[in-house]
Amino acid sequence: MQKIRVGIVGYGNLGKGVELGILQNKDMELVGVFTRRSPDEISLITENTKAYHINEAKDMTDIIDVMILCGGSKSDLPIQGPEFARLFNTVDGFDTHVKIPEYYDEINQHALQSKKTCIISSGWDPGLFSLNRLYGEVVLPEGRNYTFWGKGVSQGHSDAIRRVEGVLDAKQYTIPKDEALSKVRSGQMPELTTRQKHLRECYVVAKEGADLSQIENDIKTMPDYFRDYDTIVHFISKEELDRDHNKISHGGLVIQSGRTGLNNENNHIIEYSLKLDSNPDFTANVLLAYARAAYRLNKEGSYGAKTVLDIAPAYLSMKSNEELRRSLL
Amino acid sequence: MQKIRVGIVGYGNLGKGVELGILQNKDMELVGVFTRRSPDEISLITENTKAYHINEAKDMTDIIDVMILCGGSKSDLPIQGPEFARLFNTVDGFDTHVKIPEYYDEINQHALQSKKTCIISSGWDPGLFSLNRLYGEVVLPEGRNYTFWGKGVSQGHSDAIRRVEGVLDAKQYTIPKDEALSKVRSGQMPELTTRQKHLRECYVVAKEGADLSQIENDIKTMPDYFRDYDTIVHFISKEELDRDHNKISHGGLVIQSGRTGLNNENNHIIEYSLKLDSNPDFTANVLLAYARAAYRLNKEGSYGAKTVLDIAPAYLSMKSNEELRRSLL
Repeated sequence: MQKIRVGIVGYGNLGKGVELGILQNKDMELVGVFTRRSPDEISLITENTKAYHINEAKDMTDIIDVMILCGGSKSDLPIQGPEFARLFNTVDGFDTHVKIPEYYDEINQHALQSKKTCIISSGWDPGLFSLNRLYGEVVLPEGRNYTFWGKGVSQGHSDAIRRVEGVLDAKQYTIPKDEALSKVRSGQMPELTTRQKHLRECYVVAKEGADLSQIENDIKTMPDYFRDYDTIVHFISKEELDRDHNKISHGGLVIQSGRTGLNNENNHIIEYSLKLDSNPDFTANVLLAYARAAYRLNKEGSYGAKTVLDIAPAYLSMKSNEELRRSLL
Repeated sequence: MQKIRVGIVGYGNLGKGVELGILQNKDMELVGVFTRRSPDEISLITENTKAYHINEAKDMTDIIDVMILCGGSKSDLPIQGPEFARLFNTVDGFDTHVKIPEYYDEINQHALQSKKTCIISSGWDPGLFSLNRLYGEVVLPEGRNYTFWGKGVSQGHSDAIRRVEGVLDAKQYTIPKDEALSKVRSGQMPELTTRQKHLRECYVVAKEGADLSQIENDIKTMPDYFRDYDTIVHFISKEELDRDHNKISHGGLVIQSGRTGLNNENNHIIEYSLKLDSNPDFTANVLLAYARAAYRLNKEGSYGAKTVLDIAPAYLSMKSNEELRRSLL
């Protein structure tokens, strides 16, 4: 069997996760990693594979079936997404929710022209969580959908704390509130405010001599990031932070609560939950499943931009449709 | 907007659930219910709609877009499935897992010939649980998948108890064992026996003067149904059974446990759970979402038998693809 030949653009945590993930998927092989850094600086885990400068990718269109774009949504993907869609089938995890429609349109236009298949906004949110929001609302239309994130580290909020005067380093955990979860699970379909849904817990290393109560106040009153939440601030040492808070674990829940029956007397709860030791590893594995779909859809002549919502689940599996029906349905 | 015109074949619990479900889906309308009984015996909830004898269906192919087959998998669907696939787009919940491949092939042959789209084995297991088994294993290929059923009533096991000498009536609940769930959720990927996974709890009404210990023994040693399980038997009165055990609630879980990382050091748990007050209502709603897909796929010229694994999620939703990307992705 000819393996699916995969390229990786960007070698941060996500790119490294994709590299490891390829080893778990027996129908795939890594062709190369593409980077804006000097390729010599990068040593890969996979044998007989190497890093290339990103500019070399355009000469390798005939030996790469799918390119996985592992850059950030803020500044990398808006440039790289369209660029690579002109040359390769691609998969990315573009996650700036509000800009997805415009990103989709741009990728779609390029991919249709180049006859490529480009799956955008894959991963777990957007991605698996989007799927569960959809499956939930179509099955229980008289209902309500809730998404909770965490417990997990929010990079954006951690960065915001680091910009507070007197702060040396910090990690921020987003945590769903138990009381909100219980209410949702009870089938009451509550209206929940931002404050009621999530808690923000911060582990902060202060600079020597800094005013701790000032730092705590600056964090808790920060607009957009913390003001609308219950926020807990712990001051710890740099050693503690590095020892106890070095994981990139994450997770969350999508819950659909709905009713049926002549008088809406029957409650139904669909709950989808993720508990992830490594956010980038897991995200990488989702991107790879969708890389398989991109490869196959392209072979079938299904071109353009796609999202997880457009892709029949069977395309994600190595197994034949017959085998899926026999063993898994 | 032209509504999707739906017919229902069979008016038991599931058929009634479909009738109610149509009221929740604003893009659908009920054309009629088809029954083998005398149609006069049946009074529908929906206004301006009536019951027909099942033989009348063949004359209504031009006013019904999708027929929902609500008969049983044992004796109804093997006959009705192929018969209706020659005339209508159909959706059914065929759930005899071992016979799915052969049922698929037969429906597929008829549907291709008639240019109809027939979705088989929809519902929650097979159905939503199948989807989650697939999404789980493609995302965490170095992992293991677990399906638990319950807490819920097993009709087959309740029937088996009723056939025991001295038993007047009975209900049997299948219950996942907490210890097994905890082990699975911990990421240990345990090997679990039948006995370790589920408990069987029986509520039994004995006939007057019956030998209770004999009944209990007959139940607990019954091959296939109970012998391989830990079984609890409660004797209660007919009044208690009718009062406390009249619900047709059900549920269950699909859990994928998997590992990533250079040394498999990262655990990931994906958990999908259903808690359903009414098994037939919920199943009916799943069938309806797939009826929408059958209707659309047929319009696009995608004929033949399909399963939930073959259908892109977006086909299930009333919303346009643009709206889905904007609001839900």
